[in-house]
Amino acid sequence: MSAPVEPDPRAVFDSVPQPDRPSRRAAQERQRSLTKPPGSLGRLEEIGEWVAACQGQSPPRVFERPRIVVFAGDHGVAQTGVSAYPAEVTQQMVLNFLAGGAAINVLARAAGASVRVEDLSVSGDTSPAVSRHKVRRSSGRIDREDALTEEETLTAIAAGRAIADNEIDSGADLLIAGDMGIGNTTPATVLIASLTRTEPVAAVGRGTGIDDVTWMRKTEVIRDAMRRARPAVRNPVKLLQTAAGADIAAMAGFLAQSAVRRTPAILDGVVVSAAAMVAEDLAAGARDWWIAGHRSTEPAHTLALRQLQLDPVVDFQMRLGEGSGAAVALPIIRAAVATLAEMATFDEAGVSDR
Amino acid sequence: MSAPVEPDPRAVFDSVPQPDRPSRRAAQERQRSLTKPPGSLGRLEEIGEWVAACQGQSPPRVFERPRIVVFAGDHGVAQTGVSAYPAEVTQQMVLNFLAGGAAINVLARAAGASVRVEDLSVSGDTSPAVSRHKVRRSSGRIDREDALTEEETLTAIAAGRAIADNEIDSGADLLIAGDMGIGNTTPATVLIASLTRTEPVAAVGRGTGIDDVTWMRKTEVIRDAMRRARPAVRNPVKLLQTAAGADIAAMAGFLAQSAVRRTPAILDGVVVSAAAMVAEDLAAGARDWWIAGHRSTEPAHTLALRQLQLDPVVDFQMRLGEGSGAAVALPIIRAAVATLAEMATFDEAGVSDR
Repeated sequence: MSAPVEPDPRAVFDSVPQPDRPSRRAAQERQRSLTKPPGSLGRLEEIGEWVAACQGQSPPRVFERPRIVVFAGDHGVAQTGVSAYPAEVTQQMVLNFLAGGAAINVLARAAGASVRVEDLSVSGDTSPAVSRHKVRRSSGRIDREDALTEEETLTAIAAGRAIADNEIDSGADLLIAGDMGIGNTTPATVLIASLTRTEPVAAVGRGTGIDDVTWMRKTEVIRDAMRRARPAVRNPVKLLQTAAGADIAAMAGFLAQSAVRRTPAILDGVVVSAAAMVAEDLAAGARDWWIAGHRSTEPAHTLALRQLQLDPVVDFQMRLGEGSGAAVALPIIRAAVATLAEMATFDEAGVSDR
Repeated sequence: MSAPVEPDPRAVFDSVPQPDRPSRRAAQERQRSLTKPPGSLGRLEEIGEWVAACQGQSPPRVFERPRIVVFAGDHGVAQTGVSAYPAEVTQQMVLNFLAGGAAINVLARAAGASVRVEDLSVSGDTSPAVSRHKVRRSSGRIDREDALTEEETLTAIAAGRAIADNEIDSGADLLIAGDMGIGNTTPATVLIASLTRTEPVAAVGRGTGIDDVTWMRKTEVIRDAMRRARPAVRNPVKLLQTAAGADIAAMAGFLAQSAVRRTPAILDGVVVSAAAMVAEDLAAGARDWWIAGHRSTEPAHTLALRQLQLDPVVDFQMRLGEGSGAAVALPIIRAAVATLAEMATFDEAGVSDR
């Protein structure tokens, strides 16, 4: 993000507007009129003001249709044994999402959100209901070959953009991207380490819970993939093609377009944040429309948050993906909006101000 | 808590049971069977296991009646100008709670909890609906005189105990104590600094937002009150009498009794945590039934959390009281319980384990 980005004419997003400053100022003024000492709700106050700016109104309105889209895809690097789980789990988990039994289903219900699943590049077959945007089966083994062809990359970005448009046109007023794909922390780490110019050893984490030997193998794979990605680092489309996968490319398109469409999003963990970094390169200013839901245990996630200048809402040592860390933060964002929207003012309540 | 505590025969609580270990172990085993990498929900997993242990069953059941009790009371030290707000605000805020316009009302609604208000020692008159347990008007100026008489102290502790019993008998399955009282961070800081043997300057905070001159005055008041409290430090009833107030004494009784009655509680900020430290001295082991909802900006709050060995769920730089920091944590505790109770197992979902 420090070096200038080379735009690709075939993946151009409309310019990203800034969240509305007058609405933010009005929200700040309203905070001072509410029956509490100024600033005493701490981070909740900032969050409420950010939502007001995103919505262009103060007080902000309560979210009516927060939507979580889980982008599923397999990764060729899983063959190198970088994960604790077999690759078939991706396909099995898609069924689990559809049956409502996964963590993200439970967390979504608890937070009043709904879940959509999209298979972008699962190796096996999935239901037609979730594979309309399927780009290919799995993605290339990025330590040796590109993840995608150029055409597939553009198709995946466009799919993410179309999914965002579809959700926003259907009334979604807050978006969360989630990931599902055995091996996906490997490309995510390659993207983040490449974009932040970090040595692999300082970025590679334990993923779903790998042992030391697997970690060393994963680090080698990431080093090789980073070497292949180096020439692409300033070109977001090329970088996705070289080192990401159809799922991550779609997430990048989804996050870029949601910002273009003035719709706030809660970022999840390392995979979504890798996509977010590329999305910021595709659509500069998109990060103003995002809040970081949590900080995961993956070292690369912390690198991404620092680069995006986002301060996570919670830090629960989660490392599941699926959008779970964002879903856990959603009730807090709702609480922030509710206090700003619904509390009485000093005047209304007849309470003496200082 | 390091020195032995002298029990007072007139404020004896039944012994506090431990949360149920077999249920905790069953919950830990269940976590490993759910469709996620072991440990990948981080802190949520621990919280779910703690709730299972408190409820004595795995999986834990979803909370049906979380209740927030706001203990309101004035403090004689407010006359010394230690607060940014006039003392009449306590009474006015009681009306605001009853009208549903305060932060705690909004946060409770957002979290699916309900609010009860009790006037223990507000200076002015309040509705009969909230003053059944009123012990007195205000509390003594603790830098020069005791907060309460011995009789008032025992009455206030008994009031808190009765409120806990009443709530639990009415079906409350999760309790939150909240505070409202201009000047109340002064006695809270005296209690915490006395019990942790901390110098006043390392414990005194900005309360509702005081300036440097007021902070210095507050620190002097706290130093004087700590000197008066020193002989009482090993006797919890005497300590409440000397340096607390009827509201804080009632909170201590409430928190002690909720643990006796095997009912988990979410602690709020510095005032509630001061009461909690005394409650632990009244009823050893009570802290096993508590989770810290948040870390506030008050330095004494961090001292109390350390002494109670509680790790706050969120850190949002809040400093409002009312139970607001605990209410913000409630949806997270609900989410932790929901994942443990509702996620599919690997077997149920047909997902391959590692």
